[in-house]
Amino acid sequence: MLYLAAMSKKDLKHFLLKGQDTFLKHLSVDCVIFGFHDDQLKVLLVKWVEGWSIPGGFVRKDESINEAAKRVLKERTGLDRIFLKQFEAFGETGREKGKKGFDIPGTWKSWYMERFVTIGYWALVEFSKVTPRRDWLSEDCRWWDINEVPKLIFDHNRIVTAALEALRHNLIDHPVGYNLLPEKFTMPELQSLYETILGIKLDRRNFQKKMLAMDVLVRTNERRMGVSHKPPYYYRFDKKKYERAMKNGLMRSF
Amino acid sequence: MLYLAAMSKKDLKHFLLKGQDTFLKHLSVDCVIFGFHDDQLKVLLVKWVEGWSIPGGFVRKDESINEAAKRVLKERTGLDRIFLKQFEAFGETGREKGKKGFDIPGTWKSWYMERFVTIGYWALVEFSKVTPRRDWLSEDCRWWDINEVPKLIFDHNRIVTAALEALRHNLIDHPVGYNLLPEKFTMPELQSLYETILGIKLDRRNFQKKMLAMDVLVRTNERRMGVSHKPPYYYRFDKKKYERAMKNGLMRSF
Repeated sequence: MLYLAAMSKKDLKHFLLKGQDTFLKHLSVDCVIFGFHDDQLKVLLVKWVEGWSIPGGFVRKDESINEAAKRVLKERTGLDRIFLKQFEAFGETGREKGKKGFDIPGTWKSWYMERFVTIGYWALVEFSKVTPRRDWLSEDCRWWDINEVPKLIFDHNRIVTAALEALRHNLIDHPVGYNLLPEKFTMPELQSLYETILGIKLDRRNFQKKMLAMDVLVRTNERRMGVSHKPPYYYRFDKKKYERAMKNGLMRSF
Repeated sequence: MLYLAAMSKKDLKHFLLKGQDTFLKHLSVDCVIFGFHDDQLKVLLVKWVEGWSIPGGFVRKDESINEAAKRVLKERTGLDRIFLKQFEAFGETGREKGKKGFDIPGTWKSWYMERFVTIGYWALVEFSKVTPRRDWLSEDCRWWDINEVPKLIFDHNRIVTAALEALRHNLIDHPVGYNLLPEKFTMPELQSLYETILGIKLDRRNFQKKMLAMDVLVRTNERRMGVSHKPPYYYRFDKKKYERAMKNGLMRSF
């Protein structure tokens, strides 16, 4: 949400004094982008003069909040065509602790200095397939291991934590793995993906049972050779069933 | 969110021209209050001159969005001490289709006539225990059967549908029933509660297995006599385990 530090003084003044003509006051969007690769779970952070944050920005008067989230993510990080899932709005009165004013006459009462409620989105991508880039406004943009997230500005650490919870929650009744695993994968590879996201070890037999019950997997006739005396079969997702399961989630559980 | 129709012209003008001094522009909260009683699921609606809507209102500059939702619900319906759960923000550009202007000079460019993003909350109560009352601004306030919800203003039908989905979703990994059932209840009564909320029939044996696996129930030594040759036991919730399950939800599923 802070991308002001690197603006020219003239642009910054215009943004501070006139931004409310373009954007909705009091409202921002923030994106927690998780990256999975090789049993690692990471999160994409952006660095400003003020410190590290999740990528975020404002909502134009002529776009929906979902469109704003997509646009902001693309502008800040170069990431495009990513499925963003809204998970929570953050609206405590003191959430932007440490927000800084500007040494430009007349801007102390800028719309930007007022209170913002932010709407949080999360996404999960295969991070070796996407190359984030910092825009001209930020100092850095890179993946951080989920266990090594630094102190972030405002309430962004809390937002990351809530997003991780939402991502894990999503696993209960939505399949995950499409676009994250190779086209063909073994059950241990799928389990490893789940374990990485959940941050816990799972029982092999229960996991396999649960996954097969989801009815989104097809077992191929191929096995992964050379790794053990009982080589595991390769599976692939049945795309139609996968998509149906993504949509319906729920009812299967009862 | 519309509670303007019944204001005096002077109050209305002040609200339209000066409301942004008190409230955050562009932001509202809306509450979908579900009521359960005797195997019926209802939803609380409020009637204005403009039509039926869910109870909603604006966010004061000095309160959090969660506080705003509680206050608004209390003001509109008299309902207090209700656990509201945020589920989604609705921010399409055209969501307030049919919003009406005012025949008062100078108010056509009111903050109220601009676009609003609304944050949705849901709650589930035992509706025989709470008595909603309309406030002086609205024409009516009452429970509607979930299958007979009328055409609502703006996108409120969509918000109710999304809230119902969120409520059902919540059943997957959170127990429900506390404060909705008598202190002691039978497994068929609990199943009936779930069936009413989910809108589907459930398998008796699977349901019982799932519920016991949740580890929030205590079987008493009493049975419900006189109803069948195999009278069902009474159960009660273990409050500590119930609360822990409410908090932890997730991990049990894996």
